[in-house]
Amino acid sequence: MLSLVTLGVRDLAASRRFYTEGLGAAVVLDLPEVVFVQAAHGVLLSLFGVDDLQADAGSDEPAGDPARAPVVFAHNVPDEPAVDAAVERAVAAGGRVLQRARRASWGGWYAHVSDPDGFRWEIAHNPGLRVAADGSVTIGTVRDR
Amino acid sequence: MLSLVTLGVRDLAASRRFYTEGLGAAVVLDLPEVVFVQAAHGVLLSLFGVDDLQADAGSDEPAGDPARAPVVFAHNVPDEPAVDAAVERAVAAGGRVLQRARRASWGGWYAHVSDPDGFRWEIAHNPGLRVAADGSVTIGTVRDR
Repeated sequence: MLSLVTLGVRDLAASRRFYTEGLGAAVVLDLPEVVFVQAAHGVLLSLFGVDDLQADAGSDEPAGDPARAPVVFAHNVPDEPAVDAAVERAVAAGGRVLQRARRASWGGWYAHVSDPDGFRWEIAHNPGLRVAADGSVTIGTVRDR
Repeated sequence: MLSLVTLGVRDLAASRRFYTEGLGAAVVLDLPEVVFVQAAHGVLLSLFGVDDLQADAGSDEPAGDPARAPVVFAHNVPDEPAVDAAVERAVAAGGRVLQRARRASWGGWYAHVSDPDGFRWEIAHNPGLRVAADGSVTIGTVRDR
């Protein structure tokens, strides 16, 4: 269902650095006006100038502030120490900590970081989430753990 | 890298209907306050009340308008007629057409639709995009086609 996520960004080089060095994504295609990185199995993240994004989507309004966009992306990692390490890398690559790593109500360990434009990422270890070989995901509730 | 996308929504039932009936996502977990659907191989889409999302991310500001969020999601389909069919299903499930299907500068056929909250989706056939068995994606430029 989800094939690609396009973020409208102000500084392509800064975003590219955050997603590659910070979150560890591999670059798929570098063009002057857009950078595609591998976001997940079969899914790309596209970094595109925000004005180009608005025009392509047929909007004549200026884009809203990414920091207030009601969307949070999650980058899950295999264990709790990996959360702290990933937050450090994200900050070293231009991210900003919104909330330090803490215990989640759902049993995991997670932090909130923003990318250079303010898009929000949760960096998390979720012990209740399992990905099967075919890619199907199951997620337990707190009760189940 | 991308494990989960959480959208802050105003009406959980309306969003659930759009993503399941409209975009064809399978439900992974239905809870009173959150619905998880399978977004891609190893990736979930989480539909969560927008006020809960803001609180969880540590924001004391109200969320911005999803229609102005500088993010566009893409739902790719295998051919051009499938774009038109997917747009129809999305509209029947509560979506709204922002731009009718048209030829893209990159050679494909695509439309823009918004979900019940206004989050923007591109429904596209992209002949230059290939997903290998291991999930790695390649994307051609217009020149390559």
